[in-house]
Formats: sequence, structure tokens, C-alpha cells
Amino acid sequence: MAPLAQDWTYAEWSAVYNALSFGIAGMGSATIFFWLQLPNVTKNYRTALTITGIVTLIATYHYFRIFNSWVAAFNVGLGVNGAYEVTVSGTPFNDAYRYVDWLLTVPLLLVELILVMKLPAKETVCLAWTLGIASAVTVALGYPGEIQDDLSVRWFWWACAMVPFVYVVGTLVVGLGAATAKQPEGVVDLVSAARYLTVVSWLTYPFVYIVKNIGLAGSTATMYEQIGYSAADVTAKAVFGVLIWAIANAKSRLEEEGKLRA
Amino acid sequence: MAPLAQDWTYAEWSAVYNALSFGIAGMGSATIFFWLQLPNVTKNYRTALTITGIVTLIATYHYFRIFNSWVAAFNVGLGVNGAYEVTVSGTPFNDAYRYVDWLLTVPLLLVELILVMKLPAKETVCLAWTLGIASAVTVALGYPGEIQDDLSVRWFWWACAMVPFVYVVGTLVVGLGAATAKQPEGVVDLVSAARYLTVVSWLTYPFVYIVKNIGLAGSTATMYEQIGYSAADVTAKAVFGVLIWAIANAKSRLEEEGKLRA
Repeated sequence: MAPLAQDWTYAEWSAVYNALSFGIAGMGSATIFFWLQLPNVTKNYRTALTITGIVTLIATYHYFRIFNSWVAAFNVGLGVNGAYEVTVSGTPFNDAYRYVDWLLTVPLLLVELILVMKLPAKETVCLAWTLGIASAVTVALGYPGEIQDDLSVRWFWWACAMVPFVYVVGTLVVGLGAATAKQPEGVVDLVSAARYLTVVSWLTYPFVYIVKNIGLAGSTATMYEQIGYSAADVTAKAVFGVLIWAIANAKSRLEEEGKLRA
Repeated sequence: MAPLAQDWTYAEWSAVYNALSFGIAGMGSATIFFWLQLPNVTKNYRTALTITGIVTLIATYHYFRIFNSWVAAFNVGLGVNGAYEVTVSGTPFNDAYRYVDWLLTVPLLLVELILVMKLPAKETVCLAWTLGIASAVTVALGYPGEIQDDLSVRWFWWACAMVPFVYVVGTLVVGLGAATAKQPEGVVDLVSAARYLTVVSWLTYPFVYIVKNIGLAGSTATMYEQIGYSAADVTAKAVFGVLIWAIANAKSRLEEEGKLRA
């Protein structure tokens, strides 16, 4: 990956700094929330809720790492004119943390959704494998482009990654439609919301990726990229997780009231 | 944001330092208290109590960050005259942590209160969304003014933020009045106390904000601002949380005695 641009203002640097700290706080607190809710759902939904917290825990770890890497990559201090100045320190900013995170968390996010839907065992296993592998392949194909500055090579890997990505999104929108309709009343809307939140939040990633493809460069491009990925991550993992908890909670209530077969 | 003033005395610097450490101790210990109480309340109030602890956990994280940022922003040592001297180190003091914190915690504080009131499901969802969004918008509109030194621009954003703020406070005072009256006997007073504590502690924020608007500048303004926000935060999150726990506890007792429908 090319070194960071040299043209950072304190406001730009600070915006990324605070977006990354927001990531730590959002992911960390979501993790605790999911795990504290474990005793309040029935056994059938505990694995889904455990994984929901695992995803945000992995993200908390990576946001700490990205934050520290961001701080180490710059020198920030008072300039001669009395205003804050930001210069590149020479220590690399390791953006690969994001890809390592996604490789682990993106398949797990899909597994959460499939588990909380509680489909027949065979369908669960089949969907978990195909969606899990397709989403991991998406992340793996995106990475060679992310570390490139050659725009045509970036576009090539972007297009490659879009193939399994479109398959995953297509399965979420069309393939899971019939299964969603069979969910118990009072839960159908929540499952639909979780599916569409996944689709919408995931669609932001290919757009953030092409911020640099369309020729935006320097500090502005990196700022939009970092803030964009952070906002998409919090939505796709923590906010999505709250929906998974809401589904698990609603279905547990129905089970306890004898309205849903355990 | 403008760099810190250069005119700090050790006493002023130290007052902020200790107020921030008080924030860490108060928020951190409140978090543990709320979560240790979880098994002592009935299932109906566990989500409210979990969120109460999530709010103080997020605040604990941010008070650690603000404290460390405060320490890094100054050099403190013995001066030539044998007294302690405080000089600005050049490392920025990142006050944006407070806004990131409020963006996450202020909507959650309102959700706590709504959940512990245990209103009909539809009303709960509707109130949580409208109050949650209005309070997040309040914080978002306050920030552009906070990082400004131009007094007229500060007043402009202050006024903008006051619009959703007045809506939230109005809903707490008037809108929730009827719902409070329907709370079980022995709990009505506690719910009223929680509502009015929110209103009173929240009203301190716009006043602390205008410390700098009214022309107070330099170290004195920053000292009042930091101590004011810290005191308001501990009241609005930890003390308010104790009231939420007291309500959850009282209603759990009534449920267990069969005096309140679970």
C-alpha cells in the first residue's frame, strides 16, 4: 500500500481519529449488551446471540488496532503559527486490519442471520457454508485491489469481488424471501429488516472502495474511506446485531408462551 | 478547534484533572452496580438495567480517553520559583470525545427510561425512535458550534440544537405525564423523579455550552466547561441510572408479590 499523503489538516485527521474511537465504543458496548442478554433468550437462540457478540468483539479488537495505528502514523502538534499541524510520522498505517476483520466477521454475520431464522437443519448448514464461503471470497478478492494505486488494477479486483458479493446479496434478497415468509407472526418484519439492513449496509462497502478508484486521492480520499468504512461497520455489525437480538428475544417469548414450537 | 490557552495555573489544571478522574470512578463503579443487580430484577426490567450499565460503560471509556488526552496536552513540573508550573505541550486536547459519547449515550438514556416505564409495545417503539432521533440530532447540531471560536456562529448552532432539545424536554415533562400517572403506586414518585432529574441535569448542558459564548475565554472558561460537563454527565448517567434501578427493583417486587401483571 502506498504511504499516506502528506497534506493532512488537523480537522481531517481528527475526524478519522474520532470515527475510529466511535468504532471502539460502539462495537465494545454492543458486545457486552449481546452477551448480557444471553440468559434472557431460550437455548435455541443462544448460539446466534453468542456469535453476534463474537463479531462485535473481533471488531472491537480491530478498531483498537486501527486507532493505535492511526495515532502512530502521524505527528500532531502546535505549528509555528499557533494552530495544530499534522505531519506523517513514517510509521505505516496498517489498513489490512480491516480485511482481516472482515474475513472473520462477514461470514459470521451471515451465520447469525441464518441461525436466528431457525430453518430446517439441512438448509441451515447448506446456507451457512455457501454464504459463508462466498462472503469470505468477496473479502479476499477485494484486498489485492485495496493495496493498489493503479486504478485499472483496482477496478479489476473490485469487479472480481463483486461476483460473489452479488451472489450473497441476491440470496439475501430473493433466496431468503420464502423462508422469511414462514417466520412466525410478529417476527417477519424484524427478519425482513435484518435482511435489508445487511443489503443496504453492505452496499456501502463497494462504494467506499471506489472512492479511490474514481481518482479522489490524498488525505480527502483516505478520510472519506476511513469514516465510510467505520460507519458501515457499526451499522452492519452493531445495529444489525441489535436486530438479531430483537428477533431472538421475540421468538424466545413466543416459545415460552407455547406459541412457537421449541 | 482552537488550541488550549497558555495561561493555566496548577490549581486550575488539577481541578479538571480530578473532575475527570471522578468521572472515571463514578461511571465505572455505577456500571458494575447496575449489572450486578441484573439477577435481582424480573426479566421485564433486565433490558432497561443492561442499557443503564451500557451507558455508564461507554462513559467510562470516554472519561479514560478524555483524562489521558488532558494529561498529554500539558507539561507539568517544578518551575524555577519552586512552585508547580503548567505549560501546554502542543498535543491537542480532544474534546470531541464528549460528543461521540453523547451521540451514543443520550438516545440510550431515554430508551432506559421508556423501557422501565413498561408502556404498551407500540408506544414504547414510537417514543424510543422519536426521542432517540431528536436527542441524537441535538448532539449533532451542537458540535459544529463547540469547535468554533466565532461567538455568533456558536450562538447559531446553540439555537439550532435547542430546537430538538426543547422537543425532548417537552415530551419528558408533558408527554410522559399521563403515562407516569398510570404507573403502579409506590413507583409513580420514582418515575417522576427520574423524568425531572433528566430535565434538570440536561438543562445544565446548554448553560455549560454558553460559558464560551458569553465571552469567557482562556483557562477559566475551559475549566468551568470541563468540570460542568463532568458533573452533569455523572448526574445524567450514574445518578439517573440509580433511579432507573430503583424503579426496576420496586416494580420487580410488585410483580413477584402478584400486585403487578408481569
